[in-house]
Formats: sequence, C-alpha cells, structure tokens
Amino acid sequence: MPSGSTPSLNDVAQAAGVSLATASRALNGAYGVAPATRARVLEAASQLDYVASPEAQRLAGGAARRVALVVPHINRWFFGEMVSGIERVLSRANMDLLLYHVDGPEDRATFLTRLPARRKVDAVIAVAFPVDAAEQKRLELLGVQVVAAGGQTADYPNVHIDDCAAGRQAVQHLLDLGHRRIAMIAGTDPHHPDWPDASGRSRAWHEALRDAGVAADGNLVRNITWVGTEAAAAMDSILDGCAERGEPMPTAVFAHSDELAYGATQAIVRRGLRIPEDISIVGIDDHPVSSFVDLTTVNQQVALQGELAAQLLLDTLAGRPAKHETVVETTLVERSSTAPPAR
Amino acid sequence: MPSGSTPSLNDVAQAAGVSLATASRALNGAYGVAPATRARVLEAASQLDYVASPEAQRLAGGAARRVALVVPHINRWFFGEMVSGIERVLSRANMDLLLYHVDGPEDRATFLTRLPARRKVDAVIAVAFPVDAAEQKRLELLGVQVVAAGGQTADYPNVHIDDCAAGRQAVQHLLDLGHRRIAMIAGTDPHHPDWPDASGRSRAWHEALRDAGVAADGNLVRNITWVGTEAAAAMDSILDGCAERGEPMPTAVFAHSDELAYGATQAIVRRGLRIPEDISIVGIDDHPVSSFVDLTTVNQQVALQGELAAQLLLDTLAGRPAKHETVVETTLVERSSTAPPAR
Repeated sequence: MPSGSTPSLNDVAQAAGVSLATASRALNGAYGVAPATRARVLEAASQLDYVASPEAQRLAGGAARRVALVVPHINRWFFGEMVSGIERVLSRANMDLLLYHVDGPEDRATFLTRLPARRKVDAVIAVAFPVDAAEQKRLELLGVQVVAAGGQTADYPNVHIDDCAAGRQAVQHLLDLGHRRIAMIAGTDPHHPDWPDASGRSRAWHEALRDAGVAADGNLVRNITWVGTEAAAAMDSILDGCAERGEPMPTAVFAHSDELAYGATQAIVRRGLRIPEDISIVGIDDHPVSSFVDLTTVNQQVALQGELAAQLLLDTLAGRPAKHETVVETTLVERSSTAPPAR
Repeated sequence: MPSGSTPSLNDVAQAAGVSLATASRALNGAYGVAPATRARVLEAASQLDYVASPEAQRLAGGAARRVALVVPHINRWFFGEMVSGIERVLSRANMDLLLYHVDGPEDRATFLTRLPARRKVDAVIAVAFPVDAAEQKRLELLGVQVVAAGGQTADYPNVHIDDCAAGRQAVQHLLDLGHRRIAMIAGTDPHHPDWPDASGRSRAWHEALRDAGVAADGNLVRNITWVGTEAAAAMDSILDGCAERGEPMPTAVFAHSDELAYGATQAIVRRGLRIPEDISIVGIDDHPVSSFVDLTTVNQQVALQGELAAQLLLDTLAGRPAKHETVVETTLVERSSTAPPAR
C-alpha cells in the first residue's frame, strides 16, 4: 500500500490473510469468526490504521453514538466537574461516553494507536490538553470529530475561559484592596509547560502589576505543578526567601487554582500567620470546598464548560452550524480570605 | 412470545418486520441496512430485552472488552477517586470503560432498559448503590457480569469498607481523648436511606457510646444527605438546640464524611468557636483537602477499592476463582482538628 493513501478493507484482509467477507465480519463483531482469526484481523486493521469509512457508516445508519472522552486526570475536581457536565448533555442525547485517562503525550499516542480497533467512536472530546500536530493527523485519518473542552485548541471547536482575564480578576481584586506586594503560585502541566496560552494566568499577574505601576518581583513567584502539597512548599519557600533577604513578606497571594490556594493556606497558618489579617489569598476555580473554607476565588463554571462542549459536539456531528470558539464567563467570588493589607 | 422465555433473534426480526439476516446485520452494525430499518430493529430488540447470547459472543471471540461503570455522582471526590482506581486496572487490561451517571432508581431503570441496544458490554460495575431485585433480574437476563464497589451488595462479588468499623475508629478516637458529649452529622442517600448496612456509621456512634457507658443524646444527631451545605445547617441546628435547652454544647463532632466535616467546620468557625479548642471534629474519607485543612479523619483507600473491584471483575470474566467479598482496611489519620476537651 503506498504510504499516505487510506487503507481499504481489502488491504486489511490481505494483511491478515483472510477473505474480504471474513475481514468484514471480524471487524463488525459478527458471529462465526474464530477468535484467533478475529484477533489477526483487528491487529492488521490497527497496524494499517484502517477505519471504516464514516461515509459508509452513515449510510448504514451506523453512527456509533459513542464519544471518547480523553482526560489527563480523573480524580481531580476540575475534571470530575467537566465530565459531569459533558455526561449530562450526551446522556440526554442518548450518546455513550467512553472514558480514557491519558496521563501525557506517550499515553495519548498509545490511546490513538488503539482507537482504530475500537472503531466505533463518533467523536473525541479532549479535556484540558493540547492536541499536537501528529495527533491531529491521526485523528483526521480516523475520521472522528474532535472538540476541545477547558483549554484553547485553535484547530478544533473549543470551549474555555479566558485565563488571562480570570487571572486579572483575581490580581486586580488584590490591587483594589491596596496590596502591592503580591506573590504568585503558578500551576503548570509538566507535559505542556507553555499551555494553555503560555499561561494566561501568569501573564495576568505581570500585566495587572504593570498597569498598576507596581514592579514585578520574581522572588515572589514559584512555578509548580497543579498539586496542593507543592503549593505549601512553594509558599514556605517564598516566605523563607523574604526572611533571608530581610525583605517584607508579601501581603497577598494569587494562586492559580483553589487547590493550590489550600496548600498555600496551610503553610501560612502553620507559621502562625493569619488569613486575611497577615496575608490575603485568592484562587481560581470556585471548588465546592472553597465556600466552606471561605476562600475568595474566581468562579469558572466548569460544569457549564463541559455542557457547552458536549452541545458543540452534538451540533458538529449533526452538521448544524456551530461556533468555533466559546469563551465562558468568569466571576470573582469575594469571601473572607481577602482584606486590605494591615500595613 | 410466552412471558418469561428468552427472546430469540427471530422474535426481534418478526417484531421489526424484517428478515433474520437484516435483523442480524442491523444489530451487528454491518453496512447495507437503511437507517430507519436499523432503528426499527434496535427498538424491537430493546422492547423485547433481546441480547445476543453471551455464549455465541464468546464463540465469535467477541468479548466486547467493555465495562459499564454506573455511578450515582460524577463530580464528587469519592466517585472520581473510585473511577480512577477502576480505570487504572481496566485500561491496563485493554478494557474500555463506559461511564453512566444514574441519579437514582428511575434513572437506573432507564439505563437498564437501554442496555440491550448497546449490547456489547461484558460487565457492569455498580459504584456505591444497592442493586434491587428487579434490577438484578434484568441484569441476569442481559447476561452481564456484575461487581459492586464501595458498598455491600451481597448478591454480587463486592469490595467495600466496614462502615461500622470505620465509624467506631472515629468515635473511639474522640472517646479516648476524653469526649463524652459527641454530636453526629450522618449522611444518607435520599434514594436509599437504609443503605449501606442500615448506616453502619450511625450504628458505630451508638455502639461506641454504649460500650463506653455514655448515654446517646438524640438531640446531638442530624440525618442529612451527603452535601456540605446541609452539614453547616445541621451543625448550626445542633448548637442552637443546645443553647435553647440550656444544655452544654457538644465538645466533639463525628461527621460521616470529610465533606460533611467541612460544612460543620464552617458553621463552628463562623460562630467564633475554635477547632479543636472549643469543638473537636473528625470525618471519614481522607479527602485530599483534609490534609490542608488539618482535619482528623479515617482513610478509606477509595482508589484501592476501585482497583480491587476492577481486578475482581477481570478475574470473574476470565473464569478465575475470585473472592466474593473483599473488605478494605480503614485507618485513623490524626490531625489537628481533634484534641482533649477543654472542660
């Protein structure tokens, strides 16, 4: 088969050493195909990147009504909330949802390699990770629709927040209260340090300070992964650093997520400092626990992002006109973790 | 078709008014069946509870390698953690995971009604809800394996904690610290108030107090759903009640989950009371946020419960001997939210 051309069922049958009919029956899960034969055909189909033509599938009325949801984390709040929004819309449309946890680029490559054998997926929703060029090429070959949720991926219809705007809501709130010495605990995905948007949330801190005429102090910034324990260590390191250099402590902290804010809060409280009297803190998310610990934050309507992404997918699959990019509003939620600085 | 007998492909073909071959092709998603015809066949199959014989499926080498995961909540920590454990094991076994959010018994009935049309599911994992007799009958008819995770369901292989033992670890910890006036904020599923285990966690409170020779005071107990905001209201109601009756406040609170403990904590702190100086509080879960807010709790290894349930399922599907019931250990995690009573 010439490289670059799309493999046919015939190519699969030849590679597996079976008749066209047998290849078809094996791929369609029909009865009367021996397990070993079926395995050989699936293997050949997978190696050749064979996918049943979506055209043919439509003719047979055979939309699979199945969506693959690809998430880098399952047990973190943001992803659970996103999945719940997506599931709500898809289940109402009688679509099934296949959940794939893919940890990073290598995991995703494995996932995409196996996708053809699973064939009957109409679409993929990529939750909060960028789809690289090789992955895009492969998805195109597979003929599945792709929608991105919770992060900008310009190549696909997508739903997300404006990370820079959300960050500015948080930092501007601290500036408005009178804070000038504002630390930042920045979350990054170790697999994609420059995504989303070369960290719009970090950019927000720089821009808001600049616009307020406040010099940005790099000593008050730590870049970590999205893990609360790292935030506690980062907070300690910022405060220790100030003490060592004989500089004043920050009077406020901007954390890129609520979970990072919880970690930073623990470090602050364990040093005998009070929130907000000694240090104010603001996050981004509006995690349900934040209302209980009275954390000021920026609500980003995660379940709504999921619902809109699922709706976007249904529209795309149905050939209805769909907006390429949807930006969901974020809102500052003021609670008692922020107050004017004491000094 | 006589009621009670298993429908055949012939019954489906007759009901749909098509040939046997067409019915087979439609059900197997093969090409060459008009969409309207296919829809009619699927509808007939669904109405008749028709399922391709698992025997035939095995002969065709056609284990679907698909597991339906049925959860009553997606966006709560417990379920995300459970799903992540299950997914880890199933994906390693190259099994796909279909996620179904079913809110209560009616939703589950709908889910089970639709399951035949989806046919190719080898098994169902029921996460933290009881499967009633009618549902059991239907699942048996469908010929799928069932495993229960996160709750005792004696009829199926299951993985769970001993709720009463976990509750006793929490309450005994408070008793050992010297507390005698111990409130309880009890979580129940509104759809299944007597499940799991007629609330082993509530039973634990009664038994531990009784064994310590402490009279149980019903005024210190509130039964609510598993929602933190309700816990805040319940805590307020307990404290208001004590004030109105001129009785001493409880010196400690046992919350059935960490999220309920967060709600209760908020109510306590908002009244200007201190934890643990005025009131100690203990939960069950070891939610990741609990380490940041220093909540004493009972760790219940939720992801491990999920992994073991998935492993149990793989063993059952492969015909390997599998333990019917697995009880996962729970451990008290002492943090700073509990201390001896001041008075």
